[in-house]
Amino acid sequence: MSSVYGKNIKVSIFGQSHSAGIGVVIDGIPAGEKFDEEKIRKFCARRAPGSNSLGTPRKEADEFEVLSGVTNSKFCGAPFAAVIKNTNVKPGDYSEFSDKPRPGHADYTANIKYNGASDFSGGGHFSGRLTAPLCIAGSVFAGLLEEKGIYIGSHHEKIGGVSDKRFDPAKVTKADFDSLYRGELTVIDKAQHDKMADVIKACAADGDSVGGVIECAVTGLPAGIGEPMFDGLENRIAQAVFAVPGVKGIEFGAGFAAAEMRGSENNDPFIIEDSKIKTQTNNHGGILGGISSGMPLIFRAAMKPTPSIFKEQKTVSISKNEQCTLSIKGRHDPCIAVRALACIESAAAIAVYDALLDYYKTNR
Amino acid sequence: MSSVYGKNIKVSIFGQSHSAGIGVVIDGIPAGEKFDEEKIRKFCARRAPGSNSLGTPRKEADEFEVLSGVTNSKFCGAPFAAVIKNTNVKPGDYSEFSDKPRPGHADYTANIKYNGASDFSGGGHFSGRLTAPLCIAGSVFAGLLEEKGIYIGSHHEKIGGVSDKRFDPAKVTKADFDSLYRGELTVIDKAQHDKMADVIKACAADGDSVGGVIECAVTGLPAGIGEPMFDGLENRIAQAVFAVPGVKGIEFGAGFAAAEMRGSENNDPFIIEDSKIKTQTNNHGGILGGISSGMPLIFRAAMKPTPSIFKEQKTVSISKNEQCTLSIKGRHDPCIAVRALACIESAAAIAVYDALLDYYKTNR
Amino acid sequence: MSSVYGKNIKVSIFGQSHSAGIGVVIDGIPAGEKFDEEKIRKFCARRAPGSNSLGTPRKEADEFEVLSGVTNSKFCGAPFAAVIKNTNVKPGDYSEFSDKPRPGHADYTANIKYNGASDFSGGGHFSGRLTAPLCIAGSVFAGLLEEKGIYIGSHHEKIGGVSDKRFDPAKVTKADFDSLYRGELTVIDKAQHDKMADVIKACAADGDSVGGVIECAVTGLPAGIGEPMFDGLENRIAQAVFAVPGVKGIEFGAGFAAAEMRGSENNDPFIIEDSKIKTQTNNHGGILGGISSGMPLIFRAAMKPTPSIFKEQKTVSISKNEQCTLSIKGRHDPCIAVRALACIESAAAIAVYDALLDYYKTNR
Amino acid sequence: MSSVYGKNIKVSIFGQSHSAGIGVVIDGIPAGEKFDEEKIRKFCARRAPGSNSLGTPRKEADEFEVLSGVTNSKFCGAPFAAVIKNTNVKPGDYSEFSDKPRPGHADYTANIKYNGASDFSGGGHFSGRLTAPLCIAGSVFAGLLEEKGIYIGSHHEKIGGVSDKRFDPAKVTKADFDSLYRGELTVIDKAQHDKMADVIKACAADGDSVGGVIECAVTGLPAGIGEPMFDGLENRIAQAVFAVPGVKGIEFGAGFAAAEMRGSENNDPFIIEDSKIKTQTNNHGGILGGISSGMPLIFRAAMKPTPSIFKEQKTVSISKNEQCTLSIKGRHDPCIAVRALACIESAAAIAVYDALLDYYKTNR
Repeated sequence: MSSVYGKNIKVSIFGQSHSAGIGVVIDGIPAGEKFDEEKIRKFCARRAPGSNSLGTPRKEADEFEVLSGVTNSKFCGAPFAAVIKNTNVKPGDYSEFSDKPRPGHADYTANIKYNGASDFSGGGHFSGRLTAPLCIAGSVFAGLLEEKGIYIGSHHEKIGGVSDKRFDPAKVTKADFDSLYRGELTVIDKAQHDKMADVIKACAADGDSVGGVIECAVTGLPAGIGEPMFDGLENRIAQAVFAVPGVKGIEFGAGFAAAEMRGSENNDPFIIEDSKIKTQTNNHGGILGGISSGMPLIFRAAMKPTPSIFKEQKTVSISKNEQCTLSIKGRHDPCIAVRALACIESAAAIAVYDALLDYYKTNR
Repeated sequence: MSSVYGKNIKVSIFGQSHSAGIGVVIDGIPAGEKFDEEKIRKFCARRAPGSNSLGTPRKEADEFEVLSGVTNSKFCGAPFAAVIKNTNVKPGDYSEFSDKPRPGHADYTANIKYNGASDFSGGGHFSGRLTAPLCIAGSVFAGLLEEKGIYIGSHHEKIGGVSDKRFDPAKVTKADFDSLYRGELTVIDKAQHDKMADVIKACAADGDSVGGVIECAVTGLPAGIGEPMFDGLENRIAQAVFAVPGVKGIEFGAGFAAAEMRGSENNDPFIIEDSKIKTQTNNHGGILGGISSGMPLIFRAAMKPTPSIFKEQKTVSISKNEQCTLSIKGRHDPCIAVRALACIESAAAIAVYDALLDYYKTNR
Repeated sequence: MSSVYGKNIKVSIFGQSHSAGIGVVIDGIPAGEKFDEEKIRKFCARRAPGSNSLGTPRKEADEFEVLSGVTNSKFCGAPFAAVIKNTNVKPGDYSEFSDKPRPGHADYTANIKYNGASDFSGGGHFSGRLTAPLCIAGSVFAGLLEEKGIYIGSHHEKIGGVSDKRFDPAKVTKADFDSLYRGELTVIDKAQHDKMADVIKACAADGDSVGGVIECAVTGLPAGIGEPMFDGLENRIAQAVFAVPGVKGIEFGAGFAAAEMRGSENNDPFIIEDSKIKTQTNNHGGILGGISSGMPLIFRAAMKPTPSIFKEQKTVSISKNEQCTLSIKGRHDPCIAVRALACIESAAAIAVYDALLDYYKTNR
Repeated sequence: MSSVYGKNIKVSIFGQSHSAGIGVVIDGIPAGEKFDEEKIRKFCARRAPGSNSLGTPRKEADEFEVLSGVTNSKFCGAPFAAVIKNTNVKPGDYSEFSDKPRPGHADYTANIKYNGASDFSGGGHFSGRLTAPLCIAGSVFAGLLEEKGIYIGSHHEKIGGVSDKRFDPAKVTKADFDSLYRGELTVIDKAQHDKMADVIKACAADGDSVGGVIECAVTGLPAGIGEPMFDGLENRIAQAVFAVPGVKGIEFGAGFAAAEMRGSENNDPFIIEDSKIKTQTNNHGGILGGISSGMPLIFRAAMKPTPSIFKEQKTVSISKNEQCTLSIKGRHDPCIAVRALACIESAAAIAVYDALLDYYKTNR
């Protein structure tokens, strides 16, 4: 049941990198909500390969077909199902990895878990390609959230050693999302864009790759969303965000920096502004006790460097039980963080919407 | 359903800080497994208040009573239920916080979420006291894991600005847990112990508090545990760990540092050692594609400083809609990370055991 | 996870017949709802042993203690936990059944399932006693439903071969529940009461037992509650009702009789009455496509005769692998249907409330 | 989340009668199990319209395409997804039912639930057509069960007033399934076949329809499968079987007849036969305390007559709030029980397999 997310909604993602198709089934979208296919396509295009000079030259149109759940341009209450057919498939590239697992990939762990029966082609079920249906789901829920005045935005907070500015945690609004500089990377501080891009190009030139950090904010979220203990906003968002391949860490608000702070620094004083209760600072990242405070929700996700690099690497031959080397060929992004913004936002949208439904159950 | 964890096991935690009792119900423990009450008491004692000079002087024996699930010192298949009666309760300390929310606490968010009906006494449902039943559950599952040769250990990797050594990610074993220096804090490098303790004492002397980072390792976990996408080990552990009050970040393996690495640095080469497949380094923290690799599972959780500090703080009066100040009295730990090791280990034990059962379903 | 029910609420029941205590934890009760302890006690008293001359002479006060979830006589958002201590325990009665399973009981199946580690005393986890916490949960949810004008009632539709009248499926209201004849049994047609009681007494005199059918109605349920496919009202109610020990069948509306009807008989014509859309008849039992129609919800549950009879029975000795006989002693109801009305209503209340929350999620 | 079934497996069904496609996603199939496409097609053909002279003349090939989850003719661990494109669609037939709900159908209840946004064409999400993906899932799990020696069979126990013999509950084996007479209906007693068929033909000639009862048996199921309380075999099977449109009742073993029995009749004595523990009779239908006893699992499902009949019926116009009449045209089965055997078997297969995985978790 690893590919189903949600307590109130159910998002079921299926597919392998090179299977006949990949897709998503979503149960629990309120009937009567508008289905805006064009908006979904635009959202998903941000993730699609081939659209970014810093990414893989592999082109995947990622054209999805809606199979069910929509009538007269509205969600109709039946589960929403959308499928992307896999067309640009090169299965030949991956045959050796079932025996010689690629470092940093799931080849070895999947091999053990699935008793040798897993699909290695293109990374199979573990491929970043599975984030395409995640983004379909994410854009659906992001759209539903927007109708409630809740917006999600993200930027490349770090690529390798180059850092962007951060969102102002206590002030960030949708306007800040609209004014992001959207080049090959998406940044607040345009001056960092080319430095980041240069890092990626340098890595690519070396047949190497590099990691990054994505900062994501959710604005307009009312106070009271999320549950204590296991279903808090942090728990839910973390569960969803770690579904994006390559994420190795997440922090909310001040995050790891809070560990070095004193309470008098980290505590965010409550204030009244425009007759509303807010906090003066936002080290809590909009979440206290698992529940939204009405302040912007802020988190950062650390993404490791693309494991597929073109440098020769050390690995083993499982069949021969001996050491060997491996040279990966093919078309791989030098930095998976580049195209991952839409994926991280999708994870956040799905998690926040699911939490919102919990709120609806008990607050009428 | 915020207080129920697990897909295969169900851990239901209940109670408020000052309600008649707190406790836990666990469904899904295999019948016939030994129930070692003494071991559970020892585990839970690590978390109990009053036992550590760096913690609150408040004493809570945390004596639990087993109501069901055990027959003849064995788990019998029926749900295991254990209750801790609340005896050392001082409800008077908290009355004003329903109107004047404490910065950094869930007073305000709970008030909104529960429409003013929540129990503020002692932090109610949001109290760190609820980690006592979490530790009962954690020790049960840690015990079941130990019988399979899987061990969990943790230490204070950072308190304020003072850092301990880290576990050697590629080599850590149970022996390293056994040789931890266990004073008021638990560290690898005894030389850091007093420095950390001094930081905490200094904060306490100022009526202030401080945060910390806990590093946790799981050794002996075979390869193949965990699921791709939403139920990977990272997703599951994160969902559980964020249930511990005060956790604001989690990272696996190299974590946020991986974001600054190149792939050629971060990728862990596969090697053969003693005829077994391992990785030479362990930046992946024992998890690839959400699935255990057989290497030690390593994660770090960032804990914020205790929000209850004795310095005067700025807050608002909800009823008067005006700014005011607040002085918190009572008995509070100056550093919640001090007693949190058992909680973090518990979250890990529950999550890992739940994942192990997924493995059992499909691998026989 | 066998003892946890609900998609939106979570009802966790624990305990064995003779463990230190039994109880229930409920997560998901809306904060601010009134907690009416007296009403719950009255509801549960209908099920309690010792109160009915047709039942066991065993007396169990079934006094529960609330451990958490309530503040100032209101549900406070934290999980509600209630415990009944087991006091009137006679463990000696059951020792032989681990080797000589009682026909019709779960002794044998539990023995296999739990590898010999299950608690046989008093039927352990399989005891009808576990319906006491079910009734606590049921009365909580029945109370929440009543505040919305939704009422649940039931009667003994059949005991052995004696039949009561049935509810008028198209007309039944709360007033019909209020006018039920409540003697040792609960019936519509008082004339059948003594005939039914005589059947039970005759069986008891023979050291035998007898089965029965309980008819249950839910009135005031608005149209639109329930989900298609797996989470329809029929699915949910059935899942809950089969948790009551001894239930072997359930039917909704015309039920099995519909199988012998023609469509023109079974279809319920839509009509307008007092400007509202209703159906003229109610063979559909208030459910179409899994969703409530606004007509009374009607179902019947068949309960087998109490398996514990005092006649000598044929069984086997597992240890000796040979045929033997068994004579059950102790205090057993001659008809479990007698005290089961509150249990069946509880199952219905829990299931309907859980479905109602699904409705709230998507209809605001 | 109405269209997702399972605690260990996750079966997600999607589609409307006339949407672009319908299908199923299954998570949790053990990797390495053989994928036998031909067997699945044969199983599904039993349900497909157009193949039976007693059914609708509408032909639907129900050709499914596998999108994911299979590699080299084996399940590969990734979710299995299969899609049936809808080709033989006549949307014009249903337009008026959004205003004039068909008696016995979900038109009215879906209209309320989905705020007028539901898809009425062909019954939308409530169409019997959605049992096609249910049968794909069912045949997958029936295949996995067969490899463990567990077989599922069913027959038409009743059509209108004509009854077939029943399976011998204590003796039925796979051989009895193989020797069923499979004509237009499937019966034990060939002599009843034509009488049943005549009832259906007579109804069809009248523009009417008729109901039936399906008896289903599961043989070879070892003792110990199923959980007490809410996840017993009865609970799980009932939850699945009520997903088949038209089912209004279910009973296990003696079922409703047990309500009229004495305990001494209904209790099944344990015996030793071929050194194995069995019961002499099987009124318990192979389930005691929710757990399999090792005896054949037996249940019967009551199906109402097809609600779509060609006789003029009374209904209302929602828009005009007035009484009116309705004449349904189109292609409808006069008896939905005819083609439902594969659906009921599928529900049983899914439920039993899910329960089996619970057993695997705790018994190794």
